[in-house]
Amino acid sequence: MTQIQVYLAGPDVFLPDAAAHARAKIAICARYGLVGRAPAEAAALPNEDPWRGIFLADLRMMEECDIVIANLTPFRGPSADAGTLVELGWFLGRGRKVFGYSNSAVPFPARSIEQRRALPDPLPGLMEENFGLSDNLMVPGAVEYGGGLPIVLPPDGLSRRFDALDVFESCVAQAATSLHA
Amino acid sequence: MTQIQVYLAGPDVFLPDAAAHARAKIAICARYGLVGRAPAEAAALPNEDPWRGIFLADLRMMEECDIVIANLTPFRGPSADAGTLVELGWFLGRGRKVFGYSNSAVPFPARSIEQRRALPDPLPGLMEENFGLSDNLMVPGAVEYGGGLPIVLPPDGLSRRFDALDVFESCVAQAATSLHA
Repeated sequence: MTQIQVYLAGPDVFLPDAAAHARAKIAICARYGLVGRAPAEAAALPNEDPWRGIFLADLRMMEECDIVIANLTPFRGPSADAGTLVELGWFLGRGRKVFGYSNSAVPFPARSIEQRRALPDPLPGLMEENFGLSDNLMVPGAVEYGGGLPIVLPPDGLSRRFDALDVFESCVAQAATSLHA
Repeated sequence: MTQIQVYLAGPDVFLPDAAAHARAKIAICARYGLVGRAPAEAAALPNEDPWRGIFLADLRMMEECDIVIANLTPFRGPSADAGTLVELGWFLGRGRKVFGYSNSAVPFPARSIEQRRALPDPLPGLMEENFGLSDNLMVPGAVEYGGGLPIVLPPDGLSRRFDALDVFESCVAQAATSLHA
């Protein structure tokens, strides 16, 4: 039986030890019978500008994957990493299963207020989403509608280190169970 | 001939006068022969939690649209609005044309530095993309690969007001030309 290939989206690519971190995530996936694929390991396509080569290599890896497990931990702002969000939407648009987790236990409205205090909004009166979600509603919407499970958050309400992997493992376990159900 | 329906993604939904702003964008689209559809005008589906009703209404509107023209102006952070990015990825994943613009003339690396000065990174040593693009490479990648045109930026290198519409109009004009070419 062909094993399920999982695209490991996330700002993990920006970690100083991105390659080792990717291997740790792939090992966790393997324990749950899933084949993790990490964009950090995609070699940029040659004969392209560097950034276009990376984009096309990532897109090719996404095409080869059946599902995405996205690290939606906020990154440089109140929301998840920009590249990760494009990839999340891509999997939803492709009709492939979408799962996600976040190491932050702070709700999106509180993070948005923190952001606005540090760097004021460009115009007065810009509204805020106040649904008490973990990010802009399109993010939990894409995950719930795309994979059938909510975004996995720290179960004890305590934010984890940016590079912690216990919430990721919990997400992998839940995704594997739901895929084999 | 059926007219092309355009999903007008963007943080415009958070403007205090979102409905009037949406009508202005729809009027600009009409001048170029395109039918603009604004998520601000989608009524949340009943019998759902409020946020799920909005998500499903937006998703239904996206399904009805042929292309997306995304407002990628940075919003509360160095990158575009989170919901907009999910929608951008969705259109790319669906194989529908992707266009986008930004009212900011400040490159992504400079905005990332500003963000890190205001709110330090969660860990030391997190890398930065340094390609001199207008956002994380997945964003210009999705636009260029998805629609065939670069992200439309202020042509004079001067950032516009958050709610200015001249760069949007330029993007609509370029999209309409490329669609009819």
